[in-house]
Amino acid sequence: MIQNETVMLGHGSGGSMMKRIIDEVFFAAYGTDELLRGDDAAVLPAPAPGERIAFSTDSFVVTPHFFPGGDIGKLAVCGTVNDVATSGARPLYLSCGFVLEEGFPMDDLRRICQTMADTAAEAGVKLVTGDTKVVNRGHGDGIYINTSGIGLVAPGVELGGAQCRPGDKVLVTGTLGDHGITIMSCREGLGFSAGIESDAAPLNHLIADVLAAAPATRCFRDPTRGGLASTLNELAAQSSTDIVVEEDAVPVRDAVRGACEMLGYDVLQVANEGKMVCVVAADQADAALAAMRANRYGADAAIIGEVAEAQPDRGPKVFLQTSFGGRRILDMLVGEQLPRIC
Amino acid sequence: MIQNETVMLGHGSGGSMMKRIIDEVFFAAYGTDELLRGDDAAVLPAPAPGERIAFSTDSFVVTPHFFPGGDIGKLAVCGTVNDVATSGARPLYLSCGFVLEEGFPMDDLRRICQTMADTAAEAGVKLVTGDTKVVNRGHGDGIYINTSGIGLVAPGVELGGAQCRPGDKVLVTGTLGDHGITIMSCREGLGFSAGIESDAAPLNHLIADVLAAAPATRCFRDPTRGGLASTLNELAAQSSTDIVVEEDAVPVRDAVRGACEMLGYDVLQVANEGKMVCVVAADQADAALAAMRANRYGADAAIIGEVAEAQPDRGPKVFLQTSFGGRRILDMLVGEQLPRIC
Repeated sequence: MIQNETVMLGHGSGGSMMKRIIDEVFFAAYGTDELLRGDDAAVLPAPAPGERIAFSTDSFVVTPHFFPGGDIGKLAVCGTVNDVATSGARPLYLSCGFVLEEGFPMDDLRRICQTMADTAAEAGVKLVTGDTKVVNRGHGDGIYINTSGIGLVAPGVELGGAQCRPGDKVLVTGTLGDHGITIMSCREGLGFSAGIESDAAPLNHLIADVLAAAPATRCFRDPTRGGLASTLNELAAQSSTDIVVEEDAVPVRDAVRGACEMLGYDVLQVANEGKMVCVVAADQADAALAAMRANRYGADAAIIGEVAEAQPDRGPKVFLQTSFGGRRILDMLVGEQLPRIC
Repeated sequence: MIQNETVMLGHGSGGSMMKRIIDEVFFAAYGTDELLRGDDAAVLPAPAPGERIAFSTDSFVVTPHFFPGGDIGKLAVCGTVNDVATSGARPLYLSCGFVLEEGFPMDDLRRICQTMADTAAEAGVKLVTGDTKVVNRGHGDGIYINTSGIGLVAPGVELGGAQCRPGDKVLVTGTLGDHGITIMSCREGLGFSAGIESDAAPLNHLIADVLAAAPATRCFRDPTRGGLASTLNELAAQSSTDIVVEEDAVPVRDAVRGACEMLGYDVLQVANEGKMVCVVAADQADAALAAMRANRYGADAAIIGEVAEAQPDRGPKVFLQTSFGGRRILDMLVGEQLPRIC
């Protein structure tokens, strides 16, 4: 075992201390064949003919590092797995780049690495290449993690925000706002966290189920920073359409709704880490919904709205049809609501 | 143009400020088709039949951010391009994850992004997917960059540290220690930097030239943190061999040698960012050397030693044959010589 109780600058040196942290912490948690080989790049098997490569990256700087429902390591694996999966790819391989702050507790690092290993196993992906840097005390925040991911996209699968068409249905895979409110509650020491926990989860299997049930799915997008509102505005802009959402149809836990009201947050702008927005051709929307609900992470899935023609005299817009029969424009988040939720 | 002179928390929000920094800074420097599509994952063309995927990642935390011979953006592109290329792959695609500190000057970010674009163009790789996080003032050091890279390995190419065999020759592509001593000189305000600059460079074309000239190349490895000494110890351990290096054969600039003597550094443990160690079958070593010297980044290449049988009664070792006829063990770097040189 590493004798030093905390991360030291030498653990990022490229020398013998670095070799020890790699062997005794990282490999102990997730020593895949590719990592153990010890070369500078992992060489992965040739894809099947016609399979394209999906590639995505995400850095994680959340504080606190541990919170109800997960930790920074769970986010780091789920976030990139989910980003890769939005393309319709099977996520297969992850890289992991740590930026550790001198003094970070080694036991916290072990715990985070174990979560990463467990989450990767659930998702069916392998950590195959990594890097570790150590920055001086006062120049980080304990731990930052970058993961990048590779998946393979089967021939014929063409998903993307630009594919949305008027008449398509908009679905979400479950309740909104859980992750952002959990982090806020932890960080500010507020008392409303009872029963709320982060929704962080790997959604690649759910996505595969939906694609099997509803091949005319247009796109998936995970409503993380900026929440549902920003995601729908991105999709509207990419496809030059309007999107209309029924407020009453959007699933939100009572505790999350209450917290948002108390804090003056719009739950549609709060971050999620284990949810997908999905746009599907209207005639396959029920099939997609059924596939979501059959998955452990999609029990609260709902059809929340639809895609419409954009008016020719203005740009694409997202509208919220309110409970009271009104209609308002749902804008992207402006500024910063709650930093560092992922 | 973004009106705010510095990075603000809202630039990492997922909302409209983030959209602006992406459009006006990142896309302005390197707006590839894949990035401009705006999906969460880039979908890249199918490899040719039999081509394997090489994958590597590296985070960059160097200070200062700008130094003679380059900046953190040049390192971020070269480092990952070179790691991918060590597998014998053609590097093709990069991801880029920024962790920016609130208050970082927007003009510095623009300059770094432009360097990244220029270096990627030289290397022939595309930045295809990215992520941006902003951390609160006092929790970073201006800018940290992670890049991950994908390349394709042609059928039949099998490089790796485990391939080294007794009798093979060990080459370096140029002078050692330039990068580490440049950073040290900048950081400590020392005066010996005259004529020394970082060697950061993309070496993928050089590697391709060597592989064409010397197909019996066993491996490449870039001697970054921990320097040549740590790299050779890794190769010896991976292949269960000894490695013997002729001290006089190792190319070192006089100014770098002088700085190392003054500071008490072993130049063989100082970091490089634009050099490769290369192990080649003895009968192709001259061809490999000629190919290196014909490349703009290999003019000072040299054969510096050879691989030998390890003694059965102890583990693999690296030896330095000194100028005075002695022989000493060349160990991995212990502890931390100079942190955050990359």
